[in-house]
Formats: sequence, structure tokens, C-alpha cells
Amino acid sequence: MSPILLNGIGTVNDHSEYIEPEVPFKNPQIHVKNPHLDTMEEDILYHFNLGTKTHNLPEMFGDIKFVCVGGSANRMRSFAQFIHQELALPGNMDDVTDICEGTDRYSMYKVGPVLSISHGMGIPSISIMLHELIKLLHHARCIDFILFRIGTSGGVGLAPGTVVVTDKAVDCFFRAQFEQVVLGKVVTRSTELDVGVSKELLQCSSELEDVPTIIGNTMCTSDFYEGQGRLDGALCSFSTEDKLEYLRKAFNTGVRNIEMESTVFAAMCRACGIKAAVVCVTLLNRFDGDQIATPHDVLVEYQQRPQVLVAHFIKKRLGLVI
Amino acid sequence: MSPILLNGIGTVNDHSEYIEPEVPFKNPQIHVKNPHLDTMEEDILYHFNLGTKTHNLPEMFGDIKFVCVGGSANRMRSFAQFIHQELALPGNMDDVTDICEGTDRYSMYKVGPVLSISHGMGIPSISIMLHELIKLLHHARCIDFILFRIGTSGGVGLAPGTVVVTDKAVDCFFRAQFEQVVLGKVVTRSTELDVGVSKELLQCSSELEDVPTIIGNTMCTSDFYEGQGRLDGALCSFSTEDKLEYLRKAFNTGVRNIEMESTVFAAMCRACGIKAAVVCVTLLNRFDGDQIATPHDVLVEYQQRPQVLVAHFIKKRLGLVI
Repeated sequence: MSPILLNGIGTVNDHSEYIEPEVPFKNPQIHVKNPHLDTMEEDILYHFNLGTKTHNLPEMFGDIKFVCVGGSANRMRSFAQFIHQELALPGNMDDVTDICEGTDRYSMYKVGPVLSISHGMGIPSISIMLHELIKLLHHARCIDFILFRIGTSGGVGLAPGTVVVTDKAVDCFFRAQFEQVVLGKVVTRSTELDVGVSKELLQCSSELEDVPTIIGNTMCTSDFYEGQGRLDGALCSFSTEDKLEYLRKAFNTGVRNIEMESTVFAAMCRACGIKAAVVCVTLLNRFDGDQIATPHDVLVEYQQRPQVLVAHFIKKRLGLVI
Repeated sequence: MSPILLNGIGTVNDHSEYIEPEVPFKNPQIHVKNPHLDTMEEDILYHFNLGTKTHNLPEMFGDIKFVCVGGSANRMRSFAQFIHQELALPGNMDDVTDICEGTDRYSMYKVGPVLSISHGMGIPSISIMLHELIKLLHHARCIDFILFRIGTSGGVGLAPGTVVVTDKAVDCFFRAQFEQVVLGKVVTRSTELDVGVSKELLQCSSELEDVPTIIGNTMCTSDFYEGQGRLDGALCSFSTEDKLEYLRKAFNTGVRNIEMESTVFAAMCRACGIKAAVVCVTLLNRFDGDQIATPHDVLVEYQQRPQVLVAHFIKKRLGLVI
């Protein structure tokens, strides 16, 4: 372990090419479960346009303590700027630059101890990002960090604008599990999240105005239209009553919102021993409709709520607010 | 049917707000299978930032004859510029503007009769885009168009740079089907693509230099790492031999490349009666490795091959080349 790197000061590297130590560092916190990684001369994080030979990952990322991920690249840039302001960091918040600018697959911004990354929409898209993020944090020797997904969702029986901190991430059959196919075989993984972090987030929300927050189950689907019971897709073979019955069943099992990434997010974080939470605002109440017709400025304000909540959590953890 | 709109000339609309006719037009070509759509006063295509009341979709899109979709927003912008050049259209190719610029979920460019759209990575991401695209083409009253996915993939037993035109899109169990969950029930759909278009593409490739092309099966997975048998993810519980055995099995069933969108693309196009083809270049041979370490300029050239092939197809169909 290198306390210099962990303090975030870093060491000046004279070489433009960074090479991993011959005996790779075993991170006591992240349990990257892949014995092959230690045998690789170089690890190219293709979708980030980063690599262990081309970038000094411990120097670039070693001081990360909070990682926030969300679907939209623009939103995660705004979040980075917002955190810059909230942490009162030196420099201009508009100067945050995309670390992944060599690729358009994901966007990544580092603001002090906070990393903000976009993940696109759906389980496969966030899964690629998480594999490379977890390896990045492993290579960078990060410890004691928390990973948040801050996103948008459809609400189930909630007023639009309510923030849901996920208790259990469940699949479309309301099961708290994620099915990962490995070489054509289905492997089932738990989607349990960190209870302590969720409770701390709920406490944080009570200290804020205009961030109505609950803890509830989050249903994760692989489809926005038929999979979530929407009546307005290109294909729809069911009735309004069928839809409402499905949503009622979901509600009765504790589901309070629906999105498209939480199960694989929870499963991968758990498998790798990472403390994680899912914080999504609801843009509409699915009992009342399917289309998102709320005015743009209201949607923008809703989307800021998970950001405000997680920023408050971070500031409390850093001792910037009591 | 409005022949004026179909000829792409359009009518000048004096109103900034466009309202769909009261008796919706029944498109003889696209079979949007959703009886609810006809009863909706307005259809907001949320992830495109377009809508039937805010945009005159027939005027904007009525003359579309070719729709090309691909994962990367930058690549689909480049493709639009390339098509602008290839079709020798008036104006500056650098002036193509993103029709979806109000959102960062997808990018969309229209160049003459060609629409170029990004879809992100994975089945859920392309599925959202396809629902809204198919509704857009329906609202715009488009007929007789062809839909192409032009993408990148991992090759199975092929030299990197080979273009694969998909015969059958198969899932991770090598089945030519797509399982769609509808209200918690699994619905199985065929992933058959248009044989005529595939053969025409193969013929086109024989008329080009440096676009080595084959017809083969394409395996579509929901994961880039464990799901495709990669040894370099954050999680990996299998051996090199296990991986190679899975790839050999895939090869023996006719699989020649692996990507993450083809099954739902084929299934939705088939369900809606749309002629479609999948044209992906292979960036590496998965029997030789997992990481994409090919130099950037070589990858760029590879990624242009499906574009060159589809552009040639379009030019032939338009009678611009013999």
C-alpha cells in the first residue's frame, strides 16, 4: 500500500508510459474476482480509452472516495460541476474535462475525491462500464469508497419528483436477484445493497428541503416499453387493465420505482465487496400514465434531487457540513 | 396517403404546432402493432425529444428510404457526413445537425433519404430507440425503407476487419430467437432477417475493394465480459480452455461474430414488417484474445467498412452507380 498515493498527493512519474508493478498490489477492499488479471502485462479499459500502460491510474484516481454513476453524459457533467461548487474546490467549475474524451461510449469527470461517470441505458451498457470501473479502481488502489447510482425512474404509486433510495433491487418477476449468463450458463447473483448507506441517505434527505425521499424496492427491467407495461410502444399486446394489474402486483411486493440498471449494479458491487446505493428520482407515477409530458424545467429540477441528496451525503462524510 | 409528402417535397405548415390528422393514417408497410397508439392525442418520443404535436414528422421524415443505426454517436455522425459526400448532396457535409440535440440519449442525422441514428450499447438501449424510431417512421408515413444496423463486433474464427452480414441472429444459447418479457411473462420472437437484402449486400461487397465480407450467424449477448467468455473482466470464474470450448461450440453452430444488439433488432423489425439487415465488422478474432489492442487508425479503417458497404448498396438502389 502506498500512503502517498492514498492521500491523493500522488508521485510525479517521469515516464510517459506507466507500467504496473511486477507484483500487483492486492487491494484489501475491492475483491476483483478474476485470477487472469494478475497475469496480464497490460489492461486496456477499452470503453474508457484508458490503460495500465498508457495511464498512471493510481496517480489519476488513487484519492477517489465517492463514485457517482448515471445514465446521461450531460447529467453526469452537470453533477461534476455541481459537486465542484458544493465542495468549494479551487478553479472554475466549467473547466471540468471529460477523462474519456477519446471515446463517446462513456463520459468521466473527476472533481476532488468524487468521480462522476455516465453509463448509458440498460443492464448491458452499465455492466460494461462497471467491469472497467471496478478494474480501474483496483488498478488505482482505491480503498474505502462508496458507489452511487443517481438516476431517473418511473414511480409506482408515488408523487412525481419523489426520490427512491433502493432497498432491494428486483427483476421483472419481483425477485431480488440478477441472472448473469456465463458461457451459456445462468448464474444467479444476490442484489443486496448496503443497508447502512441507504439509512444514512434517508437521514440526509430529512435535513434537506424539497427532496422528498423514501426507501423502497426498485424494479429493474430490460425494456422501457413492453417490459415496464407501457401502452405507448411500437408493440403492445395488452390492455390498460393488464398493465395496471402488473403495476399493482409490483406495488404489493414493495416496488416503488422502475428503472433499467439497478440489479446488475447491485449484483456486481456486492460480488466485488463494494458499498453501493441506488438513488433515483421518479419522473411520473405509472398508475397515472406512461408518457413523460412534464415540462422540461420541472424535469430538470426533479433530476437534480438525487444529486442534491448525494452531494449532502458526501459533504457530511467529508465533514464540510454537520 | 399523401404523394406530395412521399416524394419528400413536403407541404409548408403555417403552424408551429403540428397536429396529427384525426383519423390516423394506416401505413401499409410498417405494422405498428399497438391499438392504443390510435387513441393517443399526442405521442411524445421522449428519448428523441420529438413529438407529434411539436414536430411535423411527415414533413421532416416522410422521404426516408434508408435508416442506418449504430452504437456510437460520433460514428453515426461520421456516417451521415460520409453519405452526404457519397450522394453528392448540395451543401457542406460538416453542417449536418443532430435532430435530437435536445437530448443526449441518442443522436440523429438526416441526409437526403438516409437517416443515421445512434443506439448506445446493448439490447435495452437499442430497444428504446427502435420503439421510438418505428413510431416515428409510422407517424411520418414512410414506406418501402430498409433498416440497417452497422456496428462493430468480436470475430469468431475470422481475420480482424472482416465484415459479417448476419444470416441468423442467435442468443447466447445459439437459438435464433429473442425472449421479450411482457408484464412478467416471457414472449419468444423470431429473429429472422431479410435474406434478399443480405444477399444483395454480399453482392455489393464483391464490387468493392478492401471490404472482405461473409454471411454468417451473429451471436447477441447481454454482457461484454462474462457473457462473451472474456477472461479480462472484473469478474471471471472460468479458464482459458472453458472460454475456447464455448467459442468453438458457437463456431460449430455457424456463429462468426458476437455483438450485443442483433436479436432484438431482428425481432422488432420482423414483428413490424420492416426489411432489415445487420452488418458488423469484426475488430479482433476472439480465438486469439479478448482485448482490443489494435492501433487506433486501423480500428477507424475497420469501422468504415460496414459504412462503405451500406453506402454502396444505397447508391446502387438510388441508381447512382451501376
